[in-house]
Amino acid sequence: MDFSPSPRAADLTARVAAFLREEVEPVEAAYHHDLAELRRTGDPWRPLPVLEELKAKARAQGLWNLFLPAEHAGEYAARFGTDGGVGLSNVDYAPIAELTGRSAIAPLVLNCNAPDTGNMEVLLRYGSDAQREQWLEPLLDGRIRSAFAMTEPGVASSDATNMEATAVVDGDEMVVNGRKWWSTGVGNPDCKVLVFMGLTNPDADRHHRHSMVLVPMDAPGVKVERLLNTMGLYDEPLGHGELSFTDVRVPLDNVISGPGMAFEIAQGRLGPGRVHHCMRLIGLAELALELACTRALGRSAFGKPIANLGGNRERIADARIAIDQARLLVLNAAWKLDVGGSPHALSEVSQIKVAVPNMAQQVIDMAMQIHGGGGLSDDFPLAGAWTAARSLRLADGPDEVHRGVVARLELGKYGATR
Amino acid sequence: MDFSPSPRAADLTARVAAFLREEVEPVEAAYHHDLAELRRTGDPWRPLPVLEELKAKARAQGLWNLFLPAEHAGEYAARFGTDGGVGLSNVDYAPIAELTGRSAIAPLVLNCNAPDTGNMEVLLRYGSDAQREQWLEPLLDGRIRSAFAMTEPGVASSDATNMEATAVVDGDEMVVNGRKWWSTGVGNPDCKVLVFMGLTNPDADRHHRHSMVLVPMDAPGVKVERLLNTMGLYDEPLGHGELSFTDVRVPLDNVISGPGMAFEIAQGRLGPGRVHHCMRLIGLAELALELACTRALGRSAFGKPIANLGGNRERIADARIAIDQARLLVLNAAWKLDVGGSPHALSEVSQIKVAVPNMAQQVIDMAMQIHGGGGLSDDFPLAGAWTAARSLRLADGPDEVHRGVVARLELGKYGATR
Amino acid sequence: MDFSPSPRAADLTARVAAFLREEVEPVEAAYHHDLAELRRTGDPWRPLPVLEELKAKARAQGLWNLFLPAEHAGEYAARFGTDGGVGLSNVDYAPIAELTGRSAIAPLVLNCNAPDTGNMEVLLRYGSDAQREQWLEPLLDGRIRSAFAMTEPGVASSDATNMEATAVVDGDEMVVNGRKWWSTGVGNPDCKVLVFMGLTNPDADRHHRHSMVLVPMDAPGVKVERLLNTMGLYDEPLGHGELSFTDVRVPLDNVISGPGMAFEIAQGRLGPGRVHHCMRLIGLAELALELACTRALGRSAFGKPIANLGGNRERIADARIAIDQARLLVLNAAWKLDVGGSPHALSEVSQIKVAVPNMAQQVIDMAMQIHGGGGLSDDFPLAGAWTAARSLRLADGPDEVHRGVVARLELGKYGATR
Amino acid sequence: MDFSPSPRAADLTARVAAFLREEVEPVEAAYHHDLAELRRTGDPWRPLPVLEELKAKARAQGLWNLFLPAEHAGEYAARFGTDGGVGLSNVDYAPIAELTGRSAIAPLVLNCNAPDTGNMEVLLRYGSDAQREQWLEPLLDGRIRSAFAMTEPGVASSDATNMEATAVVDGDEMVVNGRKWWSTGVGNPDCKVLVFMGLTNPDADRHHRHSMVLVPMDAPGVKVERLLNTMGLYDEPLGHGELSFTDVRVPLDNVISGPGMAFEIAQGRLGPGRVHHCMRLIGLAELALELACTRALGRSAFGKPIANLGGNRERIADARIAIDQARLLVLNAAWKLDVGGSPHALSEVSQIKVAVPNMAQQVIDMAMQIHGGGGLSDDFPLAGAWTAARSLRLADGPDEVHRGVVARLELGKYGATR
Repeated sequence: MDFSPSPRAADLTARVAAFLREEVEPVEAAYHHDLAELRRTGDPWRPLPVLEELKAKARAQGLWNLFLPAEHAGEYAARFGTDGGVGLSNVDYAPIAELTGRSAIAPLVLNCNAPDTGNMEVLLRYGSDAQREQWLEPLLDGRIRSAFAMTEPGVASSDATNMEATAVVDGDEMVVNGRKWWSTGVGNPDCKVLVFMGLTNPDADRHHRHSMVLVPMDAPGVKVERLLNTMGLYDEPLGHGELSFTDVRVPLDNVISGPGMAFEIAQGRLGPGRVHHCMRLIGLAELALELACTRALGRSAFGKPIANLGGNRERIADARIAIDQARLLVLNAAWKLDVGGSPHALSEVSQIKVAVPNMAQQVIDMAMQIHGGGGLSDDFPLAGAWTAARSLRLADGPDEVHRGVVARLELGKYGATR
Repeated sequence: MDFSPSPRAADLTARVAAFLREEVEPVEAAYHHDLAELRRTGDPWRPLPVLEELKAKARAQGLWNLFLPAEHAGEYAARFGTDGGVGLSNVDYAPIAELTGRSAIAPLVLNCNAPDTGNMEVLLRYGSDAQREQWLEPLLDGRIRSAFAMTEPGVASSDATNMEATAVVDGDEMVVNGRKWWSTGVGNPDCKVLVFMGLTNPDADRHHRHSMVLVPMDAPGVKVERLLNTMGLYDEPLGHGELSFTDVRVPLDNVISGPGMAFEIAQGRLGPGRVHHCMRLIGLAELALELACTRALGRSAFGKPIANLGGNRERIADARIAIDQARLLVLNAAWKLDVGGSPHALSEVSQIKVAVPNMAQQVIDMAMQIHGGGGLSDDFPLAGAWTAARSLRLADGPDEVHRGVVARLELGKYGATR
Repeated sequence: MDFSPSPRAADLTARVAAFLREEVEPVEAAYHHDLAELRRTGDPWRPLPVLEELKAKARAQGLWNLFLPAEHAGEYAARFGTDGGVGLSNVDYAPIAELTGRSAIAPLVLNCNAPDTGNMEVLLRYGSDAQREQWLEPLLDGRIRSAFAMTEPGVASSDATNMEATAVVDGDEMVVNGRKWWSTGVGNPDCKVLVFMGLTNPDADRHHRHSMVLVPMDAPGVKVERLLNTMGLYDEPLGHGELSFTDVRVPLDNVISGPGMAFEIAQGRLGPGRVHHCMRLIGLAELALELACTRALGRSAFGKPIANLGGNRERIADARIAIDQARLLVLNAAWKLDVGGSPHALSEVSQIKVAVPNMAQQVIDMAMQIHGGGGLSDDFPLAGAWTAARSLRLADGPDEVHRGVVARLELGKYGATR
Repeated sequence: MDFSPSPRAADLTARVAAFLREEVEPVEAAYHHDLAELRRTGDPWRPLPVLEELKAKARAQGLWNLFLPAEHAGEYAARFGTDGGVGLSNVDYAPIAELTGRSAIAPLVLNCNAPDTGNMEVLLRYGSDAQREQWLEPLLDGRIRSAFAMTEPGVASSDATNMEATAVVDGDEMVVNGRKWWSTGVGNPDCKVLVFMGLTNPDADRHHRHSMVLVPMDAPGVKVERLLNTMGLYDEPLGHGELSFTDVRVPLDNVISGPGMAFEIAQGRLGPGRVHHCMRLIGLAELALELACTRALGRSAFGKPIANLGGNRERIADARIAIDQARLLVLNAAWKLDVGGSPHALSEVSQIKVAVPNMAQQVIDMAMQIHGGGGLSDDFPLAGAWTAARSLRLADGPDEVHRGVVARLELGKYGATR
């Protein structure tokens, strides 16, 4: 159980921290101000120019595509500017993900944001050479963005076998039909491709019925029906879309790893992605605690700093304890992934997916309370942070499903067969 | 301890329920749709015409100004359409408030929304004849709206003695200066008057330093600096504003009950208002539980209705228990207010102010989770409901201050002097 | 919803309070001391003489058998010393139960302790004349005690259909076999009769398979295998026993209400009994809060009374809120029982059975913490109180079963059939 | 952050596990049975012979005094049978402490139980040669036991400056007076010495007022006034005593590290001891989860294994997550202690002292509930485990004090000076 970063990772982490401090933080307030302005008077979906400027700077410093997994990075790391030209382990990348989580734009700027990272990883591991050339390379290059289309509005999508959308083989084409929602990224004009998951063969065994298909956003029959908000937030410039697919036809070569392989791919895809999500939330929770401490010391009521009123110190202590426990749990999952891969870390990955968003929701709620009314407004990043944490109790599988995985594996130790 | 409504109240409650079912619910989806449309393309602050139509219907049926307190309603109840021409007790009005809480527009439609009800009550109890004629009558008539300006952005306003805004006597004028925020209602073009609270005499004893002043919205020096959002919601058509007051001059007659009387008025104002807030939240929590049950029975995963998965039934039971306990606690506070007035119910009113918003936040969060991703979107009223509950953990005094009141009174039984 | 006690009940409550203050409290420390002494050196199961003295005093004052339900008290109330000769409603009795809950011996002294009250109620409602004469009258007279034998060590007894013990009709006899545990009262030498529940007819419909049989403690084949402790406490002089029944034969006349009627009786028996349990726990929680306040004001650390350290005031406030909510919920259940009987109050009775013991456990735990190490010792009644609350999360149906009842009734409103 | 045990520690851990499985577990039921028998009929304070037999076996295998800290073990490790003759780091010892925590007797058997380990460590670090020869050697040899006397019944001892007991220099003697309680170990006839903490010089700065004095149990004036129980348990054969000290005179040489040095010693003593306590509790929590899973799979109700009812699987998952988080937090504290010593790990040690007992209390309570009534009896080790966890929320500093330390250090990052 060794959670120490390699010297190279420690150096990268320090450089990312410096980049965020020197390049990102100073422009962040203006960014949010300008975006708010665009919401009222313009097009908030068109990324603000500062993003491209920051991307160029990050890339120039080699702080680019750092999420690339060590075992699959290969030539891509070298070609696409990743510092040192090799990928990082999960334990190595985790502290970097935590740092980027503190900022709403840092993941975009470092080309390390969901869902692109997950899609890139899928292409890296399971894509054909042609698929990689067509989609992976521009994604690594930061020229395009992508989305993932799995969840459906009409059914309880926590059970993937409920999926009603179809991806049917017709000669050398795949015909895609159905309705998806919560496809993150489709609000962005740079979003050029979707990884679509649909039912291909209902008669196959339950882990080989579904396919993942690369669907260009401009394919006939693809329609963004609307952009959804979560707690009032649209998360521009990515956005979460509801889409319809009507007899969308793509070449059979667009299927990733062949028809029926979606579940296998999904299994491999989700471990590192969940580590990234959780570490980013830990970054947000740290930020919230930092803001809470600063506010609690900086304002007074009833003759004392707020920090010294009632149970506030206890709450601050509980937040510190909760964050530190959660971070260690994520590092442990990352380490298990590094040591044995996803199958070795099923319980650990589900554990963090339950523990971290719930922890972050609590800590951020506490920080809001210490801020008074302002804590719910957009004068502070707390409302957005809370929404991010709350959403992750549903996205990528609700708490209850992950608790089910943990319980199944725990009871399995005592002979339970499911 | 008798929480039974009077026959007249039971009849009114049934009629309000019918009115909401028959007149309000059928138009509510369209209302929200149109409002969303206006947010993108028009002016969401100008109340939609349907509101005036519904107000007229409600008034025609005598379901108007039902909040008017029995002991102060007098001629106003008769003149302004309140059914039967007399006011209701707190216990009698509570179930009506609960019903209106289920709808975002019902309180407006029945002329029973905060902060107007509180301001009307203040004028009723403490206003001069001239003040009543000028402001109370049009408010009761539903022709204008009002706001309350107490919380300040620059200080921890949970401690009212922190207040920095001033209301200084200068001859026969009051000169008002300072900055306020979270003044609900100022986004609305019908908002014509503010109840402003400021420091008048720093040398008086601490309960006689502040004044409440009626400030017309169009008085020179009053400026709405911006409208604030809570978790992304602007609560149109009322809104929450940040305002600046620069050498605003109003006649001394605009002071309510005389200079230095603000604390006394605030004490009397807040009890019933908190009962209303809490009962409305209980209505929201009931709505959330209803939606949760319907969704949990209507969707299936892993071969069962969601209701039958994991801990969901236990969560539904816990929600039922939590709501019922909270409602009884509010009825108890209402009954105490009826029996002995605010001074008799200090602990009880603070108890509900802690218990109910926390309960509602939990129940609504549970309902969100059962709804999956949709629960956080505006396809359901849950995100708005959650925000309402969360806000009330801060508005009208944060949880911590109310716990402090309860503890002080509890420890006082054993001789603690503060 | 009227929770006001009748004038007669208010008078009785005041007289019980005075009796406890003047007669019971002054001797309670000595009682516990003498009992502890007997544990080391004698027979703690033989009731201490002071109990009989107090019983005589209580009876002389008419504070005897006050639990007797209004609708069934009849002549028994008159004959057995109950003040006024008539029974109380559930709402009327509730505050008396709360008072007795503060003392470990008060329920015994007033002849109002479980499980005797429940058994007396069963005999009153369902017993034959002969059964009443033989068992009810001496129980009402305080001459004997009784036990209830339902839970079994070998199966999950939360599901009553798991029951393995049998009560088989053989001519004009009932033959009883099986093993029971947690039969409260069997440690006491005055315990003369058990209400035994067993399987009679496995082929009947599931609500008519079991019988309740009166089994004398001295019947051949009845054996107290051992006395159980909960968290180290044996609850002398009643005790909780594990018993074996080996071919125990009793006349068929000992069956209550006839073979196969056990479930029907159990339904009727449990509502009021659960109200009593819960009100007694509320008494214990109040006592714990009282002790917490006293200790928190009476000791200092770091220069302040403990009450003023960290989150202690907030905890005291939360306890006050939690107790008051719980009491109101119990009064509501009692009122529902009074108005419509058990079938009318199924959800309400299960609600309190979940809410109250959990609340009491929390409040008592908080009081322990404020007492420091002493709080866990027997210098204070807190350890015993905690154990009482914790036990009631299992006794009379575990939390989970009662949550299931509440959820079933809630979901039933939306058409769920179970 | 490397929590991996050294190869030697891994080997020792495996051997301890084997020893517990093969030697301790098989005799544990009989041990508890015999002890219960002695409680009724004999002297439960005289250790049962099986303890000495097991001690001899453990020592023969080198599984003896494993707690000895690497940096101080020196010759003692070699002379007193510790395997390999050198001490372990905190990270190395932690998994061994976890294993011993599963058993009520394992710590005694391996000579690794509190408070002896803490006292031995104090003598090792701060004792004079004479003190070590007289007391440390027989303790390491397992021939005698010791106690620690700090907490006082008359004051809130969470604030050490409240201490009223005195240790006054009189010529070449120390005169000890006062009253102490919760001195663990004094019930045991082998307990020969107390480390007594008392006020020596009220005029010194607040960290140099108190002294630690070695007081032989048979010194004139030392009296065990009574043995205390926690939740009914006396923890034989160690026991927790209340003691009076009346003009007890010991040579000045009995003062550890000189008069006024108590606080300095206490600081150094407590870090590793808290790690041990917490790891033992994690062992107990693991045991409770193991029992819960086994019971939940082995019993059925309502047609399913209990594991599959309601929220039980979620509870099992939550317990797994909570235990794993807590263990990682303790390992982190252990690693910090190893890397930088107590001053480097102040927050971490206080963090675990809050997090672990609370976690264990919850997990064990859940396991009790799954066991039904039996879970509260002594048929299972759960009641004892719960009491151990609950006690540790007070012993060695209550939760609130440790939260205060964590908060002070957290707020200190932002400039708070206390």
